[in-house]
Amino acid sequence: MTEFELIERYFRPLTLDRPETGALKDDAAVLTPPAGCDLVVTSDTVNAGRHFLPDDPPETIARKALRVNLSDLAAMSANPLAYQLNIAFSQNAFPPKDWLDAFTGALRDDQIAHNLFLLGGDTTVIDGPLSISITAFGTAPHGKALRRAGAKPGDRILITGPVGDSGAGLDLLQDRLTLPDDLPQNAETKETLIRRYREPEIVTSAADLIRIYAHAAADISDGLPADLGHICKASGVCAEIMAAALPLSPEIRALHARGLRTWPQIVGSGDDYKLVLTVPPEHAKDLCDKLKPHGLHAAVIGSCRRPPAENAPLTVRLTGPDGKEIPLPQAGWTHF
Amino acid sequence: MTEFELIERYFRPLTLDRPETGALKDDAAVLTPPAGCDLVVTSDTVNAGRHFLPDDPPETIARKALRVNLSDLAAMSANPLAYQLNIAFSQNAFPPKDWLDAFTGALRDDQIAHNLFLLGGDTTVIDGPLSISITAFGTAPHGKALRRAGAKPGDRILITGPVGDSGAGLDLLQDRLTLPDDLPQNAETKETLIRRYREPEIVTSAADLIRIYAHAAADISDGLPADLGHICKASGVCAEIMAAALPLSPEIRALHARGLRTWPQIVGSGDDYKLVLTVPPEHAKDLCDKLKPHGLHAAVIGSCRRPPAENAPLTVRLTGPDGKEIPLPQAGWTHF
Repeated sequence: MTEFELIERYFRPLTLDRPETGALKDDAAVLTPPAGCDLVVTSDTVNAGRHFLPDDPPETIARKALRVNLSDLAAMSANPLAYQLNIAFSQNAFPPKDWLDAFTGALRDDQIAHNLFLLGGDTTVIDGPLSISITAFGTAPHGKALRRAGAKPGDRILITGPVGDSGAGLDLLQDRLTLPDDLPQNAETKETLIRRYREPEIVTSAADLIRIYAHAAADISDGLPADLGHICKASGVCAEIMAAALPLSPEIRALHARGLRTWPQIVGSGDDYKLVLTVPPEHAKDLCDKLKPHGLHAAVIGSCRRPPAENAPLTVRLTGPDGKEIPLPQAGWTHF
Repeated sequence: MTEFELIERYFRPLTLDRPETGALKDDAAVLTPPAGCDLVVTSDTVNAGRHFLPDDPPETIARKALRVNLSDLAAMSANPLAYQLNIAFSQNAFPPKDWLDAFTGALRDDQIAHNLFLLGGDTTVIDGPLSISITAFGTAPHGKALRRAGAKPGDRILITGPVGDSGAGLDLLQDRLTLPDDLPQNAETKETLIRRYREPEIVTSAADLIRIYAHAAADISDGLPADLGHICKASGVCAEIMAAALPLSPEIRALHARGLRTWPQIVGSGDDYKLVLTVPPEHAKDLCDKLKPHGLHAAVIGSCRRPPAENAPLTVRLTGPDGKEIPLPQAGWTHF
């Protein structure tokens, strides 16, 4: 198969025949951003053996590669528009046709769900593992995209769904966690947690709503303390969150009750890809209600505080159900 | 070094403190495209061992990674604006600080020369060779970006500089070409050809001029027959080019005279990153003159022709100095 045949058969259909893409036959694509809108731009690379497991199904690799970018757009309150796909195929394991069919089919399904098209990209071969770089574009009214800076003392801290599932899924995959035999529905629990690691569930339909209500936002890719910490540093506030208020899946709740997932493990593991928002107190409950039709079960988990002194560190504190502080790893996930 | 320290020390300075970038601290960047302009978007990935050699100097790797994208923008007659940098560092050879200094320093110099800034990106680690994906953004007046379609029968075919240097440079590096001992200035010739392979020389300042005069354009990354062939297929024309009219560097001219580079080798090797343009005949000479102040020594190398019959193949024909046709590989460079 030549590069041109590969592009024509597998990738050109993902352009949805949009004229901006020139059917992937020009040196570049030509995007006309909607009038009055900013273009929100994000890039994420996922590498086999690092960000997904080499034997993961092609559908889940496709979903992870695209959704980690969609999560960044959601965190900026941007509406998805298009994406560039740069894919480096492993020389030693060039994928067979059914892999390519499944991979591009999953991209297509997610494109339809999130209303975006493939704008362009590049296909290469690498003397190493499969590597996928996506650059995604979204739109937001000029000057209105949500940033990490903007949180104010008194803001309520919201989270748009349960945390800790992905971290437990990865630990299960890598044998750092074993489910006890007495856990009800053991096989289903394992499968559910692993699926949540492999395929983050992203909601992009609430961007307009979040943009109206929230002061600041970030997605939880590096773990709640790290990502909320970024909001604190950018905004000059401290954050206090309550373990008892954290939304947990039934699976994590059961593991936590048995002492198999500690609070730092639940909140500190990355890859959850929920959003953490800061919202003026008078709108917090209202926003939670309005997010429900989008399939988001948001919860208020704490508040932003003015730092106790001018040069005090901008901390994220977690209080346990017993009222005592739970020490948190502040650094979060780093790749080096 | 944590990921955040790496970004802060080496990559944030490349944002040139542009507010669009949010100092690389947000989930995404926010670009406000200039009013009345389209955004031209291109992506290219370069992988060590495939698109550059693993021991190449960091400066030349940086220049190649960025310039192959700038070449695509130039081919679309777009003015450079910004770029996303996704870099996957090899786990087994994480670069030392002087490598990172040299790499980012070269990016910075090219940014200044071509008037663009780092908008965002991602840094990861890969269990394989260094891989660099860049997505570059340029601007062109709405609807005016040059495409491959648009060439008309009678158009003159222009090339913006000599071809064949990069291919010879790569063959020298990989011992497929040895310079004869009697060649004058042997060492300089070798160095020059290798540098042209490693560091394509790109001109982006002529975009406005080319957009006014040319009907169609492509960059020569896959070799002249392949890239001109794309213009022919997109435009419904045939192309005839004259070997005697091709601009050649003194180095290639000397090798050709000794029978060490054949015409198919000279025109067929990729990586030259000159532009091939089709221009109405009355403007061809004028455009060549106007390109000189931009450092481009363009030459008219042939013409576009109406296909001889309705379903005739849209061919690229090369005629030798003796008037006879020189068979060309039509497929060009493909990665698979």
